[in-house]
Amino acid sequence: MRGTGIRAGASMTCLIRMLEKPRLKKPVLVEGLPGMGFVANIAAAHMMRELGARKFALITSSSFQDFAMTMEGGMVRSPVNELYYCPEGLVILYGNTQADGRRGQYELCWEVLNLVKKMGCELVLTMGGYRRDYVAGRPRVYCAATDVGLLEKARGLCDGVVVGNIYGAAGLLLGLGKVLGMGGVCFLAETMGLYPDARAALEVLKVVSEFLELDIDLSRLEEAAFITEEIWRGSSEERGKYPF
Amino acid sequence: MRGTGIRAGASMTCLIRMLEKPRLKKPVLVEGLPGMGFVANIAAAHMMRELGARKFALITSSSFQDFAMTMEGGMVRSPVNELYYCPEGLVILYGNTQADGRRGQYELCWEVLNLVKKMGCELVLTMGGYRRDYVAGRPRVYCAATDVGLLEKARGLCDGVVVGNIYGAAGLLLGLGKVLGMGGVCFLAETMGLYPDARAALEVLKVVSEFLELDIDLSRLEEAAFITEEIWRGSSEERGKYPF
Amino acid sequence: MRGTGIRAGASMTCLIRMLEKPRLKKPVLVEGLPGMGFVANIAAAHMMRELGARKFALITSSSFQDFAMTMEGGMVRSPVNELYYCPEGLVILYGNTQADGRRGQYELCWEVLNLVKKMGCELVLTMGGYRRDYVAGRPRVYCAATDVGLLEKARGLCDGVVVGNIYGAAGLLLGLGKVLGMGGVCFLAETMGLYPDARAALEVLKVVSEFLELDIDLSRLEEAAFITEEIWRGSSEERGKYPF
Amino acid sequence: MRGTGIRAGASMTCLIRMLEKPRLKKPVLVEGLPGMGFVANIAAAHMMRELGARKFALITSSSFQDFAMTMEGGMVRSPVNELYYCPEGLVILYGNTQADGRRGQYELCWEVLNLVKKMGCELVLTMGGYRRDYVAGRPRVYCAATDVGLLEKARGLCDGVVVGNIYGAAGLLLGLGKVLGMGGVCFLAETMGLYPDARAALEVLKVVSEFLELDIDLSRLEEAAFITEEIWRGSSEERGKYPF
Repeated sequence: MRGTGIRAGASMTCLIRMLEKPRLKKPVLVEGLPGMGFVANIAAAHMMRELGARKFALITSSSFQDFAMTMEGGMVRSPVNELYYCPEGLVILYGNTQADGRRGQYELCWEVLNLVKKMGCELVLTMGGYRRDYVAGRPRVYCAATDVGLLEKARGLCDGVVVGNIYGAAGLLLGLGKVLGMGGVCFLAETMGLYPDARAALEVLKVVSEFLELDIDLSRLEEAAFITEEIWRGSSEERGKYPF
Repeated sequence: MRGTGIRAGASMTCLIRMLEKPRLKKPVLVEGLPGMGFVANIAAAHMMRELGARKFALITSSSFQDFAMTMEGGMVRSPVNELYYCPEGLVILYGNTQADGRRGQYELCWEVLNLVKKMGCELVLTMGGYRRDYVAGRPRVYCAATDVGLLEKARGLCDGVVVGNIYGAAGLLLGLGKVLGMGGVCFLAETMGLYPDARAALEVLKVVSEFLELDIDLSRLEEAAFITEEIWRGSSEERGKYPF
Repeated sequence: MRGTGIRAGASMTCLIRMLEKPRLKKPVLVEGLPGMGFVANIAAAHMMRELGARKFALITSSSFQDFAMTMEGGMVRSPVNELYYCPEGLVILYGNTQADGRRGQYELCWEVLNLVKKMGCELVLTMGGYRRDYVAGRPRVYCAATDVGLLEKARGLCDGVVVGNIYGAAGLLLGLGKVLGMGGVCFLAETMGLYPDARAALEVLKVVSEFLELDIDLSRLEEAAFITEEIWRGSSEERGKYPF
Repeated sequence: MRGTGIRAGASMTCLIRMLEKPRLKKPVLVEGLPGMGFVANIAAAHMMRELGARKFALITSSSFQDFAMTMEGGMVRSPVNELYYCPEGLVILYGNTQADGRRGQYELCWEVLNLVKKMGCELVLTMGGYRRDYVAGRPRVYCAATDVGLLEKARGLCDGVVVGNIYGAAGLLLGLGKVLGMGGVCFLAETMGLYPDARAALEVLKVVSEFLELDIDLSRLEEAAFITEEIWRGSSEERGKYPF
């Protein structure tokens, strides 16, 4: 009986399946995971579509939900994070979930940062929503950064600086990136966080495009933002008519 | 003093004790762990008995319950998962428990998938119950799959497709299998989930037999299903007579 | 700058510091950790004292309490497990705590079993209390075992067999020992579990001595049991006099 | 496609980034993490400033909070522990947080102890607050130690010995240090723990300076202690005037 015996599995955290190994020159890591108002998620999705980003890695974590989801027609979809790249020199962290719990968050961010560091990444850019009870007119965009140079540049493009904590991957990637010697900058747009907020995503993306000197066509996102706003204004007016 | 010093144990997850190393040609992994209505567990047990399956691995996980159970007569039984094989080309994941918590579930599924992948496995088939408040007549069987080809084939044998999440090992094995490049298909039968539901297990097994083109004698399971139904109908009638 | 760089610590579970590496012939592992009524703990302590056991390993676990305790006079004591050996061929697992949580329990038991297996151990003997609301007269001793031979031998010395689950290290060591190919037997004495129960420990130790064919002087434990009982009876009588 | 495939990340605990590798002769590890009344944190900060300590390592743990904090002006600060050294032969563990949970605490303490052990460390000195409902006049300082010699020396400088448990890193470092063969001593000063207590920190630092035979100028800490006390007395008097 060959091959028998006892095997002890080591505690797993993330599994990264590389589909391709892109060669980029000092790529910037852009975080686009779901969070407050789905701001980063929407902004990243738009960026990926407009820049023709290409998926090169699948990431699974033992801190993701332990179920599979079904889509219409019976196709199975699982909690997953993915890495995309664009020839413009971006690596985008995208997905349908964030890891749950401190350990899960740290380990996933750590694995991703290690991977992009090997690809030459020196800058981490995170995005997200900035929770407000009410957002009137254009959502303002706030920034924060891990070093003075980045902060100066970011402040010139924003309405102000972030006050308070930056939760989830958007915050952790900055801190862990710093430990790995990478600079970090974060852009948060005001959102009520009650629905996927294309309006806030648009404002973040405007600033990010300028910051990274990218030429991204924002017209489709503007349209989505317009529609979202219409729906929301409509439902608010409806709500105004009926007490609840 | 030889052999002294400090040893740091690495975080353990699963322990797999191989009893035998079977050689199979592209085996299909069939999941038969306890879950909703014990549907998968009963179906797998029947399959194993009728096909003369043979145990080849014991699996322990640090996410199983931390106790031993006693059986009549004082024999000790522990929470365990097991792998069986049949010459027909099946590897069956069977057991008296599922791992607890996300990490536990992910790590166990991951270890099992890695093991069967090395055995040449390219397809994962999971089973389970589909929770209903009431099941009238024949329990319907629903399917879901990770790719279009498998889904087409499965839909032809089922009453419809799964809507919603697939929890536990039945869902996770699909998603993690996909990361490892394996196809995945799932069959769930309607059950109220209030008792070990041999009736639902029978319906799942009918579909699975067809899907895998296996010739399984279902008469013993039909008998069990009949008895279960009698007991349940009887107790329902009893309940009808007395208010509680 | 030599020696700089990043080091990632792997998830630690148990740390075992070997003080000595004893050579024993097929030693039996005896579990004596704190639990219900401190039955195993007291029995093991007596066994160790009477047989002149010698400490050979210190065990720390990241699932122990995260504090230090002080003793009279300011000396610091930490949560610890220890391994002792006797020339009679015993390895005794002793300590002032059990690991907390499933992972902690599994990992500690696993590390200990791996260590003693390398020393030639083929049998695991666990002890403990069997919770009763009231224990009249001599506490009865119950047994359980992982194989028929051990069970037969144990039943001949006991009042009956264990019904239900065996919690903590006393149960886990049996199941994990089995995965490692070691036999396992467990002896539980009736206890109310309200105080360190020397009476129950005495009864367990009588059976264990017979089972292992050890010649242990039980007079000191008998004395302790007598005193415990006096105290308890006294306090019960007191309680009888005053309503509370 | 080179470089593709699956990578499984091992469970991460601490990440230590070495900025420099100092050479010291049998340095003493001094713990100065935040805890009860921030006593250790304040004492360590003062010690570091007066002795001109130099940062040589950054420590991140997956048991730290999973967010980034912003400071005035938008600079990002993350939960971090740091190691400093002084030519006097001290290694100081400093930071803005402690790891959360047993595993996190054990693993961080373990990694730090392993690192300083390699640097030749044989003594661990921890500090902290000793919770009191009311502290009248000079906060008393209590000690505890892992061996008799250290305890004797410490008692000669203190008002008494610690009674009860020593929580967090201050306690764990003693116990784990002992497993690694290092001596351990702990000094706790009385504090109400309601505010950063410079007064208690001063008393601890007086004793620690004597114990380690260090010449530390305490005037700045005395000033801080004086101001703290004034503020507190003021606010207490205020409170006396208004019921709440």
